[in-house]
Amino acid sequence: MINVAILGFGVVGSGVAEVLDMNSASIAEKMGEQVSLKYILDVRDFPDSPYGDKVIHDFGVIESDPEVDIVVETIGGAKIAWEFTKRALAAGKSVVTSNKELVATHGCELMELAQANGALYLFEASVGGGIPVIRPLNQCLAANRVEEICGILNGTTNYILTRMIRAGLPFEAALKEAQANGYAEQDPTADIEGHDACRKICILSALAFGRHIYPDQVPTQGITGVTLADVAYADSCNKKIKLLGRSIPQADGRVCAYVAPHLVDMENPLACVEDVFNAITVRGNAVGDVMFYGRGAGKLPTASAVVADIMDAARRRGQKYMTWGPGGADAAVGPEALASCWYVRTNAAAEQVKARFAQAGFLSRAGAPEEECAFLTGPLTQAQVEEKLGDLPRLSLFRVLD
Amino acid sequence: MINVAILGFGVVGSGVAEVLDMNSASIAEKMGEQVSLKYILDVRDFPDSPYGDKVIHDFGVIESDPEVDIVVETIGGAKIAWEFTKRALAAGKSVVTSNKELVATHGCELMELAQANGALYLFEASVGGGIPVIRPLNQCLAANRVEEICGILNGTTNYILTRMIRAGLPFEAALKEAQANGYAEQDPTADIEGHDACRKICILSALAFGRHIYPDQVPTQGITGVTLADVAYADSCNKKIKLLGRSIPQADGRVCAYVAPHLVDMENPLACVEDVFNAITVRGNAVGDVMFYGRGAGKLPTASAVVADIMDAARRRGQKYMTWGPGGADAAVGPEALASCWYVRTNAAAEQVKARFAQAGFLSRAGAPEEECAFLTGPLTQAQVEEKLGDLPRLSLFRVLD
Repeated sequence: MINVAILGFGVVGSGVAEVLDMNSASIAEKMGEQVSLKYILDVRDFPDSPYGDKVIHDFGVIESDPEVDIVVETIGGAKIAWEFTKRALAAGKSVVTSNKELVATHGCELMELAQANGALYLFEASVGGGIPVIRPLNQCLAANRVEEICGILNGTTNYILTRMIRAGLPFEAALKEAQANGYAEQDPTADIEGHDACRKICILSALAFGRHIYPDQVPTQGITGVTLADVAYADSCNKKIKLLGRSIPQADGRVCAYVAPHLVDMENPLACVEDVFNAITVRGNAVGDVMFYGRGAGKLPTASAVVADIMDAARRRGQKYMTWGPGGADAAVGPEALASCWYVRTNAAAEQVKARFAQAGFLSRAGAPEEECAFLTGPLTQAQVEEKLGDLPRLSLFRVLD
Repeated sequence: MINVAILGFGVVGSGVAEVLDMNSASIAEKMGEQVSLKYILDVRDFPDSPYGDKVIHDFGVIESDPEVDIVVETIGGAKIAWEFTKRALAAGKSVVTSNKELVATHGCELMELAQANGALYLFEASVGGGIPVIRPLNQCLAANRVEEICGILNGTTNYILTRMIRAGLPFEAALKEAQANGYAEQDPTADIEGHDACRKICILSALAFGRHIYPDQVPTQGITGVTLADVAYADSCNKKIKLLGRSIPQADGRVCAYVAPHLVDMENPLACVEDVFNAITVRGNAVGDVMFYGRGAGKLPTASAVVADIMDAARRRGQKYMTWGPGGADAAVGPEALASCWYVRTNAAAEQVKARFAQAGFLSRAGAPEEECAFLTGPLTQAQVEEKLGDLPRLSLFRVLD
């Protein structure tokens, strides 16, 4: 019998209880023993929940109960969740989490603490919700040197962009619709400004390249600057605007990681990822491009990944597993030196643009104001494109994904 | 030090040697010890290969060398490969393979033999080339009951269909082009008739549903009957023709598995899978749909999966791992009772069709002969659509993917 305690009985925590229940027979068959929910820690009581009798309010009970093998942390944030995770690991219990903020901020230290105590710290659910990506990256692609990770890592922004592209809704209206459908928080900042995607690319980068990358090292641009004009110009050259997190190892050992909107060619499978779906493309030096696709959020998808980690934690008790090294100022670098083609929307005459960008590929859209001019450049670094633009106004400036 | 022997130095076998070499440092770092190629078994000599000095011709040397931990079987077929795999497992060596024919035919028995000898039989490379799918299905989605597997499992046929759709090449010309590009064998039967996809859906079904499914239990239709007329009609209703392997568990415990061309809606991510790429969609009762995408064949992608299995086999030595139960006549069922909408192309007047299919959605294409009639039906089983068609000629009859 494997005993589990859930910390935080919110959307994901209650989903974990539900998945353990609904698939208990098949889980027990695969594990050769029962996986049983012993405690739920929350500040609230849940008298009407079928799990109400498991609710406790004192973490000390879980910490000191030798029967608890695995602790599921679905509190979120990096305060009390951090505290409880450290105490659980110190008590030799494996911890499984969907908390991307905590993993992105303290993952390295928590994995070390786990290892020192014969426990595991697992976080498949922290990236891509239910999509298997952490474990495949760590195990299935282990024979590869990873050359790039590039992903649609946030379902809220992908939903908003999809609605802008398909239904012609302006950003604000698409955001309102996402909120009405429960796909965006009332305070949508973490999603639309790219912070959520940033945490996820940090986790993927650390896993693929071996050193902790901190969110504040990763230049992050959200989608608030994307307009329907940009959507139309992208469509005119057979591309779609997607918010991407990218991470590319550099020759000097640093990792170039950033989050920004990109124009993605319709033939790229990432362009087919719509609505709240996520997808992560990994390029390995042997395997080429592989992509993992699915629902990046939601109660049961995320819980599905948490429960898979519970099963894995039980199987691998005491084994050495995933780790990465500590970070530092020399671990990450912004995308300044990364050459891309660029999409530019400006107010200028085509002649002015041609004088500065000899190879500009001009774009057109119906209803464009006379002074508006949009074009694609050849491959340039950010400094190069900025320098060439000079005093031209930058209405929009996005990279084109190769 | 982990010592490996490769059986069969063809495309995949030599790719394994290459990946072990090219990524030896990162592999050793991840494993904590060196992975070393000790022998290559082949009937030929390779005096010009950098691995020429490792070539031997007597399997007995490998079988009796206690230093050999892991045997890589890349011979193919189910004869000598079967023999050597059994002997290696009986000698307590783990076997890693890309041989889908052998896994689909004898996988159950070979996994049992492995377990009885404290060894593992791993075959990530047998489905989807380098795409991680076997291990994610077994581990990451372990918390789910699988409700359906549906995939583009053969790169050759997907390339041919892509060229028919994009370049308007007739089937024969697209096949010739695939052969010229090395994407199709000189005898393309196993690909174009669906046998290759059939073996892969057998393996995925067994893994997901726990019982061996034999290729001869799986109704298999290839793409030789797909015409440019069908491509045009599919396009007219915003769909693409794809060869799919599908597997759906039934209430009675049997598995409905089959291979056939389907019309797939452009909004389905499977429709975005082009050229030689493969993709496998798995629907779990908690996670919903997840998709795994990448190169389904090729030297280094396939070798990448083999080497990941080598690393896993070394780590998990002696552990209980994947198994499935034996098959039997009651394990599988054809898709006869599976209701779908259907695409029908026939020679008949629209009035005749309307009399039989009240809800027919008629399709049109440029240049259609006057007597040709194509339409989509509502949901019907195969028997129902056949009965309604009666004596109308079936020029094409394909399912539409829901």
